[in-house]
Amino acid sequence: MKRVAVTGGGGQIAYSLLFRIAHGDVFGAKERVSLHIRDLPEMRNVLEGLAMELEDAAFPLLAEIKIGSDPDELFDEVDAAFLVGAKPRGPGMERGDLLVENAKIFVDEGKALERVASRDVRVLVVGNPCNTNCLIALSQTKRLNPHNFHAMMRLDENRSRALLAKKAGVPVTEVTNMTIWGNHSATQVPDFTNAKIGGERVDALIDRDYLQGEFLTTVQKRGATIIAARGKSSAASAASAAIDAMRALVTPTHAGSWFSSACLSDGNPYGIEPGLIFGFPCRINAQGELEIVPDLPWDLFLREKIAATQKELIEERSCIAHLLGDKR
Amino acid sequence: MKRVAVTGGGGQIAYSLLFRIAHGDVFGAKERVSLHIRDLPEMRNVLEGLAMELEDAAFPLLAEIKIGSDPDELFDEVDAAFLVGAKPRGPGMERGDLLVENAKIFVDEGKALERVASRDVRVLVVGNPCNTNCLIALSQTKRLNPHNFHAMMRLDENRSRALLAKKAGVPVTEVTNMTIWGNHSATQVPDFTNAKIGGERVDALIDRDYLQGEFLTTVQKRGATIIAARGKSSAASAASAAIDAMRALVTPTHAGSWFSSACLSDGNPYGIEPGLIFGFPCRINAQGELEIVPDLPWDLFLREKIAATQKELIEERSCIAHLLGDKR
Repeated sequence: MKRVAVTGGGGQIAYSLLFRIAHGDVFGAKERVSLHIRDLPEMRNVLEGLAMELEDAAFPLLAEIKIGSDPDELFDEVDAAFLVGAKPRGPGMERGDLLVENAKIFVDEGKALERVASRDVRVLVVGNPCNTNCLIALSQTKRLNPHNFHAMMRLDENRSRALLAKKAGVPVTEVTNMTIWGNHSATQVPDFTNAKIGGERVDALIDRDYLQGEFLTTVQKRGATIIAARGKSSAASAASAAIDAMRALVTPTHAGSWFSSACLSDGNPYGIEPGLIFGFPCRINAQGELEIVPDLPWDLFLREKIAATQKELIEERSCIAHLLGDKR
Repeated sequence: MKRVAVTGGGGQIAYSLLFRIAHGDVFGAKERVSLHIRDLPEMRNVLEGLAMELEDAAFPLLAEIKIGSDPDELFDEVDAAFLVGAKPRGPGMERGDLLVENAKIFVDEGKALERVASRDVRVLVVGNPCNTNCLIALSQTKRLNPHNFHAMMRLDENRSRALLAKKAGVPVTEVTNMTIWGNHSATQVPDFTNAKIGGERVDALIDRDYLQGEFLTTVQKRGATIIAARGKSSAASAASAAIDAMRALVTPTHAGSWFSSACLSDGNPYGIEPGLIFGFPCRINAQGELEIVPDLPWDLFLREKIAATQKELIEERSCIAHLLGDKR
């Protein structure tokens, strides 16, 4: 059985995510799961209703449901943690304020993970600003494997693949090897130069002006476009990406393939500043260990974009440097 | 490839349902799907946002997405139709008014299915009052197989199984052979007398007073309890039940097992009034045909409850008798 924590349990992303975890979409059709659902104390009623619905779905694999607010209780022996809950940007709030407000949440959660989680826990931070939130949680830990701390780039990866597939008129499965470098923010770098369509270079099939222009801005603004259409944020596609992202972390990656995930930049083969949670091309080897895929070429365009997203992440870190733990 | 229509596409149930269909939860991991999503013209923007999110999930099996309002366009050649969209009960609306308002929707959808759907289309009505809505749609058809028209009893079945499993302290997979007789309404009859826990009679393990009292009322009121807790209706568990219900209709049933579904009562082995959509124990044989499981005994308690739910369905039918098609 796998114990899986989900924070922000009363929110819309969790409402999609939890049913898919209980159905077996992360750990497969043979592994039972125990769901540990966390939210603020004032969300207690919502979590109770949610737990009823999860029971009522009669999932064969769902062995147990725990709900509550105490992270030590909810993270106890968890094998996977989806950290979805975060403070949204309020009116008049500066980016620095947002970082600091969120930092408090992730300091507490990082400390609790260090105290009680499984030694091999995989942590996926979905709550934004997810890269820096992930760094804060990681900085509170010493016992846990730092390479198991990730921030979600997968929604950007999936969006990029879907958009290129549509443009090229091919099934989305044909678009592979897509990296999102850097920060999950407007500075993200969807790397069409190293991605492939049916094994071919993307720019052999799609005009480079489109790729450098409309493609990049469409991916970067996709969340806002969906909010404008739906009147609500893109919860189900974010949840679906979180499922894909966690499954990728617990499954050996096909030879020649990789996925996008933001992980600790210490010792990375690209010369990115150490001590950041940075989006890289990643794979899981046969021993279940994380590897950053080396040797992807950067052209001048990519190099400039990656420098900018790195700069942003360094600035984010400086805003919350006083809150980083001293364990590492 | 399977073409799957979902109405009420902009609503909360569809928001859970569509992602699970696209993931392969109804037709399996090898069958591609085309989603045809219907809602009112004023929901166009919402459907556009939804379609973007479905694309962004990059589901390998999702071949195509169609959105719109015209039923002839959306039901064209569909193999399965989830009729989720219905008019909710407004303030001061009598039950009769509700039936008539909904009848208009299901007359149109039944006619469109008759004109353009695949001859073998499976229709699952989720929008309430689902039994009578289903009857109305069915009555507009002649070319289609009447045994492929169903109203959803599966949420009640799943809730009943989950509740009995919790009470008996066993996994939900141990609770089997649960029938919900009659109408998907407060008169529904969750049949604990023929259900089994670990192959044993339920009342050998659980006190009969509890079963006749608290168990029945808990199942009947579960929807209201969840709304009170969450502040929203039970959309994800309803969607999950719809997935289970449709999958059951397209998959041969294990020997000795059955599932609950409301289907046409013509020629039923229990003497229920013909011409109703009534919840029965159902199975799909090796040829893919629907069978109502015969010979389940009814004790006096069950007999009285089933008479009451039958009476309610006959009354519902009389409210909309003038709107029933004359094709059958």
